[in-house]
Amino acid sequence: MASERLIEGLKGRVRELEAELERLKRRDLHHDTHRVKIEKMSAEVVDSNPYSRLMALKRMGIVEDYEKIRTFAVAVVGVGGVGSVTAEMLTRCGIGKLLLFDYDKVELANMNRLFFQPHQAGLSKVEAAEHTLRNINPDVQFEVHNYNITTIDNFQHFMDRISKGGLKADSPVDLVLSCVDNFEARMAINTACNELGQAWMESGVSENAVSGHIQLIKPGETACFACAPPLVVAANIDEKTLKREGVCAASLPTTMGVVAGILVQNVLKYLLNFGTVSFYLGYNAMQDFFPTMAMKPNPHCDDKYCRKQQEEYKLKESMKPKQETAVVAEEEEIVHEDNDWGIELVSEVSEEELKAASGPVPDLPEGITVAYTIPITEASSGVTVEESDHSLDELMAQMKSM
Amino acid sequence: MASERLIEGLKGRVRELEAELERLKRRDLHHDTHRVKIEKMSAEVVDSNPYSRLMALKRMGIVEDYEKIRTFAVAVVGVGGVGSVTAEMLTRCGIGKLLLFDYDKVELANMNRLFFQPHQAGLSKVEAAEHTLRNINPDVQFEVHNYNITTIDNFQHFMDRISKGGLKADSPVDLVLSCVDNFEARMAINTACNELGQAWMESGVSENAVSGHIQLIKPGETACFACAPPLVVAANIDEKTLKREGVCAASLPTTMGVVAGILVQNVLKYLLNFGTVSFYLGYNAMQDFFPTMAMKPNPHCDDKYCRKQQEEYKLKESMKPKQETAVVAEEEEIVHEDNDWGIELVSEVSEEELKAASGPVPDLPEGITVAYTIPITEASSGVTVEESDHSLDELMAQMKSM
Repeated sequence: MASERLIEGLKGRVRELEAELERLKRRDLHHDTHRVKIEKMSAEVVDSNPYSRLMALKRMGIVEDYEKIRTFAVAVVGVGGVGSVTAEMLTRCGIGKLLLFDYDKVELANMNRLFFQPHQAGLSKVEAAEHTLRNINPDVQFEVHNYNITTIDNFQHFMDRISKGGLKADSPVDLVLSCVDNFEARMAINTACNELGQAWMESGVSENAVSGHIQLIKPGETACFACAPPLVVAANIDEKTLKREGVCAASLPTTMGVVAGILVQNVLKYLLNFGTVSFYLGYNAMQDFFPTMAMKPNPHCDDKYCRKQQEEYKLKESMKPKQETAVVAEEEEIVHEDNDWGIELVSEVSEEELKAASGPVPDLPEGITVAYTIPITEASSGVTVEESDHSLDELMAQMKSM
Repeated sequence: MASERLIEGLKGRVRELEAELERLKRRDLHHDTHRVKIEKMSAEVVDSNPYSRLMALKRMGIVEDYEKIRTFAVAVVGVGGVGSVTAEMLTRCGIGKLLLFDYDKVELANMNRLFFQPHQAGLSKVEAAEHTLRNINPDVQFEVHNYNITTIDNFQHFMDRISKGGLKADSPVDLVLSCVDNFEARMAINTACNELGQAWMESGVSENAVSGHIQLIKPGETACFACAPPLVVAANIDEKTLKREGVCAASLPTTMGVVAGILVQNVLKYLLNFGTVSFYLGYNAMQDFFPTMAMKPNPHCDDKYCRKQQEEYKLKESMKPKQETAVVAEEEEIVHEDNDWGIELVSEVSEEELKAASGPVPDLPEGITVAYTIPITEASSGVTVEESDHSLDELMAQMKSM
């Protein structure tokens, strides 16, 4: 009798536990339920179609062939405040493939920017991002790399993935987006893209969180990152904001969201062929000022692959019929040998550094200035960038970070 | 013996189920783990501090007193493509309280914008948003209302919450943000804010997804939404993009992200007193053009509370010492009685409507134009807005949607 009651009791307990387990699993399933994959983008206007508002761009006369978005592969280097939002926007737009590169972990200190959530703290940024993005849009292909692209081995692997990670077998990606926060990583992307002749876009946000920019770099056609000092947006704020060693950078979800938004907008215009693609677009949040410009490459660029791409571009252009001259070729030449110092002081350059500097300062539109200038050294006084032999190492030493 | 084996078997099964249950519960718990509440914002530079990058704005000289953000309550009306990102940015910035108003449900068709995820399809937007936002930042207070503010009963309740939903007992909110997608809702917010003398910001994105704007409205000081035809950004694209009845609007996460970004940036500048607060900032995504302007109120505005606020503002200004005149008062008067039609055609107004229209067209800066004009009627030919008696109902009938 006692054992029968025990058996009944245990059986009841098993039923209870099974029911509880079933309930939890259902809830869990619901939480992870993402929509099923979609074979072909539809323009049907129904609540269940995740692409209806994008396909409407065709009917509105904005984009001729929106479905083409599925044929493109984009690499996003840096999945932080700008890169994560950039990846999310591209995912929601239905990009064909995303390659994500980062070696950082999610921290609570990142919660003042969009995308990552507190429960992801401690996870690698690329893995956390992939999980969220796959749930949002399972139609996108993901390839993630949890490493620092600037080390020798990783750089080779990075080059390999850029040149062979496209949607077709062994084809290159269609675009590389730099969403990194330091000079070394930008220079690594620049080096790789010059060698591969790979178009890329650079983005950046200032240390004081109130300015940012995006820039399209087409090797041989536009200035590369090594052609001239990087351009930044003049903040028009006083000197106490100058960057100091060891000081924690400020950041805002607003500025980073705007920079990611104008970056991905430029990507869409570039890939889907609508509107005017910006070569440089700045954002000064203090005054709501958005300067634009374009910049020709420096024929004496330190990067030999940049010089090689310039030769190839010139050759290609010379073989084209006259009316097809490129947009940038029509823009004003920006590197002048005689130039005064009538530019605005920005957070990255101190007044002393500016006064002590030699070398040309590009003739820039209002609101844009250089991130640093090249100081006078014993031999190079009066020498222009074109003629100087300042190495990237020297420039890098000057740039503590961007 | 048989019953003993059965008992052992059942005991084993119970242990198995309990272990499985424990595992699932732990996972579930981890998934919902959000960070603990934080009593006081700290500037300490550690990975575990979610406010370190925001508090750095003080050290960088951008914001004098960042902690003040916790004392503000902001109402967000419309939690769609712009409103949800707006609410998320404010949440991550550590705003004191958010009041969310929307009556819509999350649909898969919303997945081309940021914020909502497929597993939330079917949930009410305000409830889904509150759940996500609380997980992101438990320090923010939330008050959500799942209703349409334009019905009579709800409008009264909305007025009540705007005037009493602030952080102190029965105090008004500090700012109302309009992130709605239709004219009626904008007009309801305008009416409420005029009566209450409540500052608000309006935002909008065009039906073709490639332009948008934000606008700060201070009753009595700047033009309200009823003072003049709403301003929109000229898209400079051809006529086939004209809005047609029943056509599904296009939308892009990029344009909506940029508009949310410049909106919340303006909110931060307004509340925390830094930079220049924009009265109107437009975004033309096709050309990367961002026009700005300011507009004085119309002394003959249809809204009696707007006229009352104007009187009060004038009285207040006249009592101030001379040097303290407001920014807007220095701007050019925009409503002219004699005005030619040299403005650009935008998607909301057809060429025929424009030609058939009478009434004044504001003298607007390049890139900004009106959303509609007032057509000639039998009696009002040659009559200006100031003198016309067109009612809001008539204007609303003209505006199918914005």
